[in-house]
Amino acid sequence: MDHNGLRGRSEELGDLMPEHVVSLNTDIGEGYGAWRIADDAALLGVVTDANMACGFHAGDPDIMRQTCETAAANGVGIGAQVGFHDIIGFGRRFIEISRASLTNDLIYQLGALSAFAELVGSPVAYVKAHGALYHAAVQHEQYAGAVIDAIRSFDASLPFLCQPGTSFSARAEKAGLRTVREGYIDRAYQPDGLLVPRGTPDAVITDIDEACRRAVAMAQSGEITAIDGSVIAMPVDSVCIHSDSPGASEVAQAVRAALIDAGIALSRIE
Amino acid sequence: MDHNGLRGRSEELGDLMPEHVVSLNTDIGEGYGAWRIADDAALLGVVTDANMACGFHAGDPDIMRQTCETAAANGVGIGAQVGFHDIIGFGRRFIEISRASLTNDLIYQLGALSAFAELVGSPVAYVKAHGALYHAAVQHEQYAGAVIDAIRSFDASLPFLCQPGTSFSARAEKAGLRTVREGYIDRAYQPDGLLVPRGTPDAVITDIDEACRRAVAMAQSGEITAIDGSVIAMPVDSVCIHSDSPGASEVAQAVRAALIDAGIALSRIE
Amino acid sequence: MDHNGLRGRSEELGDLMPEHVVSLNTDIGEGYGAWRIADDAALLGVVTDANMACGFHAGDPDIMRQTCETAAANGVGIGAQVGFHDIIGFGRRFIEISRASLTNDLIYQLGALSAFAELVGSPVAYVKAHGALYHAAVQHEQYAGAVIDAIRSFDASLPFLCQPGTSFSARAEKAGLRTVREGYIDRAYQPDGLLVPRGTPDAVITDIDEACRRAVAMAQSGEITAIDGSVIAMPVDSVCIHSDSPGASEVAQAVRAALIDAGIALSRIE
Amino acid sequence: MDHNGLRGRSEELGDLMPEHVVSLNTDIGEGYGAWRIADDAALLGVVTDANMACGFHAGDPDIMRQTCETAAANGVGIGAQVGFHDIIGFGRRFIEISRASLTNDLIYQLGALSAFAELVGSPVAYVKAHGALYHAAVQHEQYAGAVIDAIRSFDASLPFLCQPGTSFSARAEKAGLRTVREGYIDRAYQPDGLLVPRGTPDAVITDIDEACRRAVAMAQSGEITAIDGSVIAMPVDSVCIHSDSPGASEVAQAVRAALIDAGIALSRIE
Repeated sequence: MDHNGLRGRSEELGDLMPEHVVSLNTDIGEGYGAWRIADDAALLGVVTDANMACGFHAGDPDIMRQTCETAAANGVGIGAQVGFHDIIGFGRRFIEISRASLTNDLIYQLGALSAFAELVGSPVAYVKAHGALYHAAVQHEQYAGAVIDAIRSFDASLPFLCQPGTSFSARAEKAGLRTVREGYIDRAYQPDGLLVPRGTPDAVITDIDEACRRAVAMAQSGEITAIDGSVIAMPVDSVCIHSDSPGASEVAQAVRAALIDAGIALSRIE
Repeated sequence: MDHNGLRGRSEELGDLMPEHVVSLNTDIGEGYGAWRIADDAALLGVVTDANMACGFHAGDPDIMRQTCETAAANGVGIGAQVGFHDIIGFGRRFIEISRASLTNDLIYQLGALSAFAELVGSPVAYVKAHGALYHAAVQHEQYAGAVIDAIRSFDASLPFLCQPGTSFSARAEKAGLRTVREGYIDRAYQPDGLLVPRGTPDAVITDIDEACRRAVAMAQSGEITAIDGSVIAMPVDSVCIHSDSPGASEVAQAVRAALIDAGIALSRIE
Repeated sequence: MDHNGLRGRSEELGDLMPEHVVSLNTDIGEGYGAWRIADDAALLGVVTDANMACGFHAGDPDIMRQTCETAAANGVGIGAQVGFHDIIGFGRRFIEISRASLTNDLIYQLGALSAFAELVGSPVAYVKAHGALYHAAVQHEQYAGAVIDAIRSFDASLPFLCQPGTSFSARAEKAGLRTVREGYIDRAYQPDGLLVPRGTPDAVITDIDEACRRAVAMAQSGEITAIDGSVIAMPVDSVCIHSDSPGASEVAQAVRAALIDAGIALSRIE
Repeated sequence: MDHNGLRGRSEELGDLMPEHVVSLNTDIGEGYGAWRIADDAALLGVVTDANMACGFHAGDPDIMRQTCETAAANGVGIGAQVGFHDIIGFGRRFIEISRASLTNDLIYQLGALSAFAELVGSPVAYVKAHGALYHAAVQHEQYAGAVIDAIRSFDASLPFLCQPGTSFSARAEKAGLRTVREGYIDRAYQPDGLLVPRGTPDAVITDIDEACRRAVAMAQSGEITAIDGSVIAMPVDSVCIHSDSPGASEVAQAVRAALIDAGIALSRIE
């Protein structure tokens, strides 16, 4: 699994290693100053990996340190959730920026988070692009290139969380980056493996049981039923729980339990 | 010289090593977005060490990368010039902040700059506190403590640029940090070794020749004539050139030449 | 009542006018971008006056417009809650700033809020200083002076919400500003009429019934029992409900009901 | 001249009124905190109208007040130069934002500047869109609509500075806004009346004499020679001098002298 950043604990199990291993990631530390948006402490008790906001779309030095400390104390891996420099827009708005400047914005974020991650003894283990940056990277080579350039400049060995089958993922792999294949438990897929756009009927899956079934399916069989009923390949290394939806920690708990019940091992990205 | 961060090139000279060695530092990279405040390129051709703004009081990722690249290409050392989070105030205004939060703000800046410094192959070599943060650290234990905590958390081996004889300097040394003793060529000293406050008559020295004489005196004899005519001890490891005054690079050139003419070796902080 | 900004509806009642009239104010619109901190819609159904954040310590143009629209639709008065330029610190940190620059920061905020208030047909009716700015204005003439200068520059007829008996209040009245005397229902008073500092035992009153009794006492008899048991004069024109404490809208409902039950009329600041 | 915001002084001249009247506008107040980008004081001695940055892409409350005071003292008209909320990008980057949110951002800026303009006794006289906002408004109905909505919400009588012949200009006029037709003295025109894009050879005119000739041609005959040699109609009410190019105030002086020599009256936008 050269495109798979999952290693570590499960490898040590030797013959006892479960057939299927998956990580459970969520966005963490997306407050700012006096404001909070999710129950980070509860989520950090459930997931295996935390995508930490780095202060450009959300997060500040106090939040970053505190969430890194909690993550490390819980054995949860620390990932860098990098984004556009856009606090007021929560990183959800497209911003025109050159490949070179965006690369520098991302290196800055990686360095800043890394200082806290090193301090708590749990170095940054992977990178994920947030919100509008992720969408821009999927759609425009210039933005994908900046994310790739930044990782290669900062630490070319860092795996990169990305939906499999996208041009972004292909570019990252071509550039020699390790990718961690990510699946969404609460989003419908098109037959071509891309997500059904938000706003389309049935694009978002709100039933927890169904979300759990989808998590198990992707982790176990590497398949998912697309919105047209066809079964498509969707092998994943990590499943994402959205942290800013109501009841996020309950959803995370349920998904975690369903995966374990199905004999799937949970292991953080390394 | 356990309180002296100057090492490296001059040590390798063995018997040929000049008796006196000093570094020449200046603030660099204090622009923001479309704005610039100094002729960084010219200054980077003269000084031995550049105190890089880290994006909190000035500087942005593009500027940080570019000035790191130029510094590295010129063999100029990269220092972290950390400050309050205050772009609109250029880090010159006191801001009330807890020791813990300030520590985190500084760690964030150190991490961010470090990413660029590592990228250009010239790791952060020292730390300096900017403007109002420096003054707060000299006056209040809480602020001095935060600077010290941040350096110890980030990299306890980093030397710290500070005026000798201040409580800030004493605290840093007591905490086990290496200090680099800094002298000001364009500021008058009180008999107690502290600076004559700005606004006092003759507090600022504008004559270039006099500035050069003072640089040589501090570097060579470790003495300076205070404003009352008394000669006081002021041994320095580095002299500071203000970058945002008109003709800054000409002053830097003159001071550099005067030091060399006096047989004093220039060597970057390490 | 020359120091009293309460006028309008109650004056028109003539002989039927209740003996006692008070306004009920709370902070509103203290979110930022994607973040929210209070249930503004619920509070705007209870209070008579809303202290709107103006974008410098909290609030943004979307929030300002929306809360102005809701306030106007509910007949709630719009006040300008001005603060230090400090989003990351929520305006709760002291910032060193010249009287002239602070004045300009406040005029900017007043102008910005005024545009939205005029748009919804409910012009800015009063001014209140937020958090650290309020405390700085109580303690330092320079900061009080800036608030006064800003109001006089923007609209000298605007009343100003302030605790009676403070030097800030005295300065504002001396400068010819109308003041609206404000009382705190959840804070203990010293015998000298100032607030018992937070952190002191019993400084904050958490019992809702007691808070209601205090609101009625200040509005009806113009007296309050200080922390030492003495009864002191505390005549108020407006009582403040903190919006960012849990259950804020329930407290506001209870206080409103208690005032009405006591025969005290509620009327917005004008 | 229903699409012409030039009125006032020249109208009072009656029979003595020159046949041709034009305003000379430039961007002013585009510094931020400690940074400056142009010689505002010199320019305010030459132009008739100053497009004031309002704090979102450049400008801060101190700068806004000072430039308003200087403009008023010099008899220079105050226009609102509104932009995207993008200090780090100087308003030169496209930002994705809804029509409603952008409208609110612009109303906020108009209100803030208006407070200073009223204070100096020279109310905001017109509106101009800065940088990327201008380009977005020319290209996308959503952005043009937001500018138009904001002006109509703030003060529907305010004229709007815009290049004639653009869809943006057409939309503004259709919405009932008065437009001030603006010409560029240092940019080549296509035969269709639009600007030759920057980056194209000969897109920018650097010769001062040629710039002066073009200013006179547009103001006097309402014609300009396009890049292909054809003469096209380009009647203008105001010509724009770029403030951030080197020697901007000398160019402005030369253009002003050339216009006066040609018997063209200079009059501010009203």
